[in-house]
Amino acid sequence: MATSMPDTNPKARPAATRETEIADDRRRQLVSTAASLFEDGYHSTSLNDLARAVGISKPTIYHYFGSKEEILFWIHEEFIDVLISREQERAALELTPSNHLLAIMEDILELMASHRGHVRTFFEHYRELSAPRRRKIKAKRDEYEAAVRGVIARGIEDGSFRAVDTHLATLALAGMCNWGYQWYSPGGTKSTHDIAQEFFSIFMHGIAESG
Amino acid sequence: MATSMPDTNPKARPAATRETEIADDRRRQLVSTAASLFEDGYHSTSLNDLARAVGISKPTIYHYFGSKEEILFWIHEEFIDVLISREQERAALELTPSNHLLAIMEDILELMASHRGHVRTFFEHYRELSAPRRRKIKAKRDEYEAAVRGVIARGIEDGSFRAVDTHLATLALAGMCNWGYQWYSPGGTKSTHDIAQEFFSIFMHGIAESG
Repeated sequence: MATSMPDTNPKARPAATRETEIADDRRRQLVSTAASLFEDGYHSTSLNDLARAVGISKPTIYHYFGSKEEILFWIHEEFIDVLISREQERAALELTPSNHLLAIMEDILELMASHRGHVRTFFEHYRELSAPRRRKIKAKRDEYEAAVRGVIARGIEDGSFRAVDTHLATLALAGMCNWGYQWYSPGGTKSTHDIAQEFFSIFMHGIAESG
Repeated sequence: MATSMPDTNPKARPAATRETEIADDRRRQLVSTAASLFEDGYHSTSLNDLARAVGISKPTIYHYFGSKEEILFWIHEEFIDVLISREQERAALELTPSNHLLAIMEDILELMASHRGHVRTFFEHYRELSAPRRRKIKAKRDEYEAAVRGVIARGIEDGSFRAVDTHLATLALAGMCNWGYQWYSPGGTKSTHDIAQEFFSIFMHGIAESG
């Protein structure tokens, strides 16, 4: 049973043997395929379906994961880790609160295209995680939400934003972007980048004609 | 098997016998209880659970509904019908586009409190409806979305709104409000009315300090 999913960065695991690397790659491949299959229904997808899709036997899956619920956990973990790591990478850039929010909106909307299966699973099957795993994911969700709230608070402090309720403004931003998982289609005329720009403009300036 | 779910208004069914009325009440009660149970998991809730919760036998449920999926359909129908009927009631009021949008946001957020089970089911189990039933619900969803888009278009026309992309602005508004089903808790310090006001203010004027 996997107890940790190492970073893709080889420097993060200097002691990794070739065998461990192969196991990690296989684990990531299983999680990614599971995310795609779960997009069409978590409950209707069995570990047999997953084994068939990856071309291995079901017992082999148990070599990597203790249960379907553990795979569900890794999908959650991967998804929130992408958001958190992008947020951390930005720390050094010292963006203005406004540019920082745009980057966050771009991140979230981009995941609607790049991590479709992860997104639906993350939003719809969180409650099916075991309590200890739910706590782990909740801590990371809270961490990310606090980061967004912090950017809004910083904008209020430096006078670039109005004195909005930072909690509700964060939920408004999250709602605009996260909701994309319900309607975003990769074949549309607008890229996730275009959509982020439009949403950012509404979130910053509203739709009312000023003056 | 139910083929139509009459209005609660007795004037809408003058020919209704007492027996039909009792059947309709029972049907509504079943749909409403099912919505509450499904909130904790559509797949993990059986018709036996529903029968037990309402205090009837499982065969009696089949007197009212052909399948669990039919109940799923009625939950969808009830939810979207509430939104559409409120929208229709407003037609006579000739609200300004801005006040009209506020009313829409209040409607949606209010349902997060009054129809919790319906909301989650509507957003997460739509794809589990049979194709013909999905088409019916989709037509109503599209109708409602077109109404919202129409209000925004009217505001652009009369100069009260900026020339935003009406489709994306509608999705932004929907996202802000619909997302509430993920986080809104009836025990919070803000009412759905307060939240609608805050979201409306962001949607209209943005969070940027103007000038």
